[in-house]
Amino acid sequence: MSSSFGKNIKVSVFGQSHGKAIGVVMDNVPAGHKISSEELQLFMDRRKPGKNKLSTGRKEGDVPVFLSGLENDMTCGSPICAIIENSDQRSKDYDELKGKPRPGHADYTAYVKWDGQADMRGGGHFSGRLTAPLCIAGGIAKQILMEKGIVIGAHILEVAGIRDESFPCTPTGAELENISSKEFPVINDHAGSNMIKAIEKASQDGDSVGGIIECVAIGIPEGLGGPMFEGIESRIASAVFGIPAIKGIEFGAGFSSSKMKGSEHNDPMYYDEEGSVKTKTNNAGGILGGITNGMPVVFKTAVKPTPSISRQQETVDLINKENTTIQIKGRHDPCIVHRAVPVVEAVAALVILDMLMEDK
Amino acid sequence: MSSSFGKNIKVSVFGQSHGKAIGVVMDNVPAGHKISSEELQLFMDRRKPGKNKLSTGRKEGDVPVFLSGLENDMTCGSPICAIIENSDQRSKDYDELKGKPRPGHADYTAYVKWDGQADMRGGGHFSGRLTAPLCIAGGIAKQILMEKGIVIGAHILEVAGIRDESFPCTPTGAELENISSKEFPVINDHAGSNMIKAIEKASQDGDSVGGIIECVAIGIPEGLGGPMFEGIESRIASAVFGIPAIKGIEFGAGFSSSKMKGSEHNDPMYYDEEGSVKTKTNNAGGILGGITNGMPVVFKTAVKPTPSISRQQETVDLINKENTTIQIKGRHDPCIVHRAVPVVEAVAALVILDMLMEDK
Amino acid sequence: MSSSFGKNIKVSVFGQSHGKAIGVVMDNVPAGHKISSEELQLFMDRRKPGKNKLSTGRKEGDVPVFLSGLENDMTCGSPICAIIENSDQRSKDYDELKGKPRPGHADYTAYVKWDGQADMRGGGHFSGRLTAPLCIAGGIAKQILMEKGIVIGAHILEVAGIRDESFPCTPTGAELENISSKEFPVINDHAGSNMIKAIEKASQDGDSVGGIIECVAIGIPEGLGGPMFEGIESRIASAVFGIPAIKGIEFGAGFSSSKMKGSEHNDPMYYDEEGSVKTKTNNAGGILGGITNGMPVVFKTAVKPTPSISRQQETVDLINKENTTIQIKGRHDPCIVHRAVPVVEAVAALVILDMLMEDK
Amino acid sequence: MSSSFGKNIKVSVFGQSHGKAIGVVMDNVPAGHKISSEELQLFMDRRKPGKNKLSTGRKEGDVPVFLSGLENDMTCGSPICAIIENSDQRSKDYDELKGKPRPGHADYTAYVKWDGQADMRGGGHFSGRLTAPLCIAGGIAKQILMEKGIVIGAHILEVAGIRDESFPCTPTGAELENISSKEFPVINDHAGSNMIKAIEKASQDGDSVGGIIECVAIGIPEGLGGPMFEGIESRIASAVFGIPAIKGIEFGAGFSSSKMKGSEHNDPMYYDEEGSVKTKTNNAGGILGGITNGMPVVFKTAVKPTPSISRQQETVDLINKENTTIQIKGRHDPCIVHRAVPVVEAVAALVILDMLMEDK
Repeated sequence: MSSSFGKNIKVSVFGQSHGKAIGVVMDNVPAGHKISSEELQLFMDRRKPGKNKLSTGRKEGDVPVFLSGLENDMTCGSPICAIIENSDQRSKDYDELKGKPRPGHADYTAYVKWDGQADMRGGGHFSGRLTAPLCIAGGIAKQILMEKGIVIGAHILEVAGIRDESFPCTPTGAELENISSKEFPVINDHAGSNMIKAIEKASQDGDSVGGIIECVAIGIPEGLGGPMFEGIESRIASAVFGIPAIKGIEFGAGFSSSKMKGSEHNDPMYYDEEGSVKTKTNNAGGILGGITNGMPVVFKTAVKPTPSISRQQETVDLINKENTTIQIKGRHDPCIVHRAVPVVEAVAALVILDMLMEDK
Repeated sequence: MSSSFGKNIKVSVFGQSHGKAIGVVMDNVPAGHKISSEELQLFMDRRKPGKNKLSTGRKEGDVPVFLSGLENDMTCGSPICAIIENSDQRSKDYDELKGKPRPGHADYTAYVKWDGQADMRGGGHFSGRLTAPLCIAGGIAKQILMEKGIVIGAHILEVAGIRDESFPCTPTGAELENISSKEFPVINDHAGSNMIKAIEKASQDGDSVGGIIECVAIGIPEGLGGPMFEGIESRIASAVFGIPAIKGIEFGAGFSSSKMKGSEHNDPMYYDEEGSVKTKTNNAGGILGGITNGMPVVFKTAVKPTPSISRQQETVDLINKENTTIQIKGRHDPCIVHRAVPVVEAVAALVILDMLMEDK
Repeated sequence: MSSSFGKNIKVSVFGQSHGKAIGVVMDNVPAGHKISSEELQLFMDRRKPGKNKLSTGRKEGDVPVFLSGLENDMTCGSPICAIIENSDQRSKDYDELKGKPRPGHADYTAYVKWDGQADMRGGGHFSGRLTAPLCIAGGIAKQILMEKGIVIGAHILEVAGIRDESFPCTPTGAELENISSKEFPVINDHAGSNMIKAIEKASQDGDSVGGIIECVAIGIPEGLGGPMFEGIESRIASAVFGIPAIKGIEFGAGFSSSKMKGSEHNDPMYYDEEGSVKTKTNNAGGILGGITNGMPVVFKTAVKPTPSISRQQETVDLINKENTTIQIKGRHDPCIVHRAVPVVEAVAALVILDMLMEDK
Repeated sequence: MSSSFGKNIKVSVFGQSHGKAIGVVMDNVPAGHKISSEELQLFMDRRKPGKNKLSTGRKEGDVPVFLSGLENDMTCGSPICAIIENSDQRSKDYDELKGKPRPGHADYTAYVKWDGQADMRGGGHFSGRLTAPLCIAGGIAKQILMEKGIVIGAHILEVAGIRDESFPCTPTGAELENISSKEFPVINDHAGSNMIKAIEKASQDGDSVGGIIECVAIGIPEGLGGPMFEGIESRIASAVFGIPAIKGIEFGAGFSSSKMKGSEHNDPMYYDEEGSVKTKTNNAGGILGGITNGMPVVFKTAVKPTPSISRQQETVDLINKENTTIQIKGRHDPCIVHRAVPVVEAVAALVILDMLMEDK
């Protein structure tokens, strides 16, 4: 029950949507790594709302202020703390929701867990806004990984049932960066424009849509991870489910392996020209027995449709203990999949950096 | 990088496939719980191989011997240790595999991680055999949960692309137990017999098939879990990926939520006749914001096709550093999905018991 | 290697002495606890420097600003983050120390660990200043424990070889609070004034003194803790050694038990008038087998003399790789024992609150 | 609340004194380390009872049987599990103690914690016998550390108020091994023979004595550990308090620093002939700011007098709820300090090996 994770690099996220500030502490980052604030800001901007009509109209500056851990853009060994001040809040939008939990939200479960004492304005600590500090930490992790030749990229694989292409089996770092940094990060822009239309349509209908994100990490040394409960899948999955709205994760062929024969699924092995062991396919997603095999680490993760919709919905009135309906006002994203793309990269980067700090 | 998990109930699995014994330590189980060894054995038998032609011909007695923690079938507060002695091993079947990693297995990654020093006969510590001790611990957890009115059941949802029905939205404990304890645990036996045929066909072809398991837990109090990284999804997912061959997990509507509208996905809330808050559908899988809402906790998990197949496969010769092929001999399961059903229940039970030990 | 601790209540301290701000995140505090900011400030003031000539002349406001987790002085379930902005810094005092590690300080070890990249001005992240955020978290924990009838108090037991009396075997909450909140927290004020003289003398001599703190917690339910590695002693000790300058800890009779016979050391047991099991003496310090027995939990902890002294000292010049001497300027405490008293209480409170969140 | 510890090397101890077997799982030990079983047995024999009249008359073979993790005396990457079967038990000696907790023992606290359901024959899981499996794990750790040039040794510093000499400031590995492997491990054998007389005297009086153990580790690289809560002191202290009967720990000058001036306590620094930074004294015990400075790591730990004495003692009758007395029969050690010496080394070795597996 915790807003922190990590074994060597410990990441602790704090803040409520309508509190004074949100932020993150990142403990145990080694000293001496140069962190470019421009690059970090570009990464942060990828999840920023208010850029277009696909997202909430809220303006979130999302400029991190570093309280500790960086001196002259260099990590200095002490824990990094960065905060983002909250400004553009409209708490009154939430007044009439009091005691009426929004379906698909954590309102009811937070109410039960904290005996009605949670500050749930704007989703409180469960708000998607809390992924901004995650991106600060993850953006730093990405820069440190880049020094080691490890590149992590993600894109929208599916929105509203419209499918993008998958990453190639062995993408280059440049490919990953080009795709993931697009304003609407898809491989096939034609599929992308259909997704955008579907999102706009949902918005007009007072509704929302979900999707799937595909994430790849290249350059990870083989032999990372271990058998059973601290394998790479366990650790990435555990952290990725910490992102609000994530409801599934699969590695490599994942759920589709249930339809494959062993002879199709097993990745044939061979020596490449440089004498490295490779596999011809990557159904394993770069992981066998919880340990990396040197192929790209690949996973897909499912994002549910944004629960905040403006249509009338059935709920309960916890104060008067009766059935009722609500209509949620305020500014809400009809889709958060595109904004979640950098968040997934951030979490993957943090887990991989964490694992790299363990001795082989 | 660890064969142990859990925060309050710590489970530590040990053993290699061809070592002296395999076993498990289960630390911090409260004293005073009666554990029926008959019931535990019935649970263990559900994963036992050699029962029919769907499984390996190996005879594994799989009778746990308790070294500590149980006195007169009662937990006594000290860590529970149980072992299963290994007997029916045919190490020579593995001799010719030396230096030739089997595709889809952990042979290569273990080789890299442990510099060629791992004992990989029979899959070593990565063997599916290690799920037997997991079932000991999980079977004990299931009995303790039963005292609290919590029932966990699973069934085969899919094998080789053949689909069973899903559990009903709010199954009873009796339904869960009836289904999960079938010799071939499916809801629709007609689908089940088609699955069996597909498995037998794969076996004849020297091939293997994978599948999907659906698991449900009922009776879990609302308010269990927490936001972000120690929510129920994070903890169940982390442990489930510790089971060999698992490649995906989804909660509630999971990956299919990517095709749903928010208005379809959000579960409408209402008061039932007893004044409890319920939802009409359960796309959330009983979890919102990482916290239980009182509905059944539902997840599905993907099992890859057994990597050991008798067909010729492309691999590398690590000693002579050249490409080669192998053909795996010995007795292997053409499908492990049915045997993995109790293992998934075991892991779910362990995580839920672990979480119940934390104060609300 | 971490500035965070705790299993259920996770405390993460951040900041460098001369950075922008220092602070703390306290994760997983249950919602609905009223926190008095006046009371918290009174507690913070107990470690504040600049009150008299026994401490550094630096003025540290030490007024926490809460960024999250408290709404209207009530915990709201989301992680509590509080910061203290740094203001009265004189970084130039440290300029001539560059490359010349101060004996008894972490300068050299931080230099080695972080390859010379640590921000060590003012002691950096190793500064005693980092105990201010610990007191914020601990002060909150103390208030929550008080609701449960648990009172924690500490006093100076020894400074410069001058000994105070020990707490009585079964102190009342009022006694603990009266003593620990004194400006110079001793039981025997005559001993206290001798200590003060010794501190002033050391100050005049450009030297410093150390001491011993005794801490007691009453009202802790019996049965808390467990055998072996997560017993109360293990958990308190682990956290107390996180306080800079602590070099020893003992529970109950501690080191003096080495001079006792078993017949003297074993605490005779009896039923008191209310039918509770008590012991006539408390050599066990309230703990047997790592588990509380209902008697007060008592420990003593050793504080080394402040390493910053103005006398000339032998050190090395890491840049020119030669032996040299330094003389430390700036404002330094000739003794930190009295200021460490609330810090020890803070840490004890955090550990006990953490342990209370586990089910018996 | 746990019988396991460690972050990278996880050690989990199981068993009750009068159960079938006791043992240990040691997870995540890297593959490829040669473990000499002769050397391990010699180490185990150092804590073995029944060697002379200073110890219990019980014969404990204490020969570990390895169930997994070692193949041909080589670690193979999978968790190491070793057990010792229990044989020479006299459970009836404990019959009349039922419901009458022995003063100074965990009988009462275990009773409270586990509602009277603990198996406390022979001390159950709290028995000193559980330190035998700790020595298996620690003995393996010592052999792996030895490969890296790290030697750990301990001796009896004090028994019954009789003091041995301290280790020299910078002992050699040979000195450490010679002293610690003595049958009665002291530096000054004259002090040793006085200690032995005091132990025999206590035994004749139906009483017992306690003592202090000093432990030193040499060859540890500088820069190991970290600030605050995962520093070396925190981690060693946490594990050492997991040993039954330990009531105090201090590093370097420890409690005596309370009587020292800063100018005496600060260790003067210099370059030695090989260009390494050293200190002239070692009051810091090799640790500054939680991080090693390259000097020997030194700590002392207090062992209480054995609580099992044959004299009549006051206790309570938990069944009849009245005051009563008991007289403990059976074979008991009048002193366990000498037998605890290898246990302290074992725990220190395990913590240091665990910390070495983290990247600098």
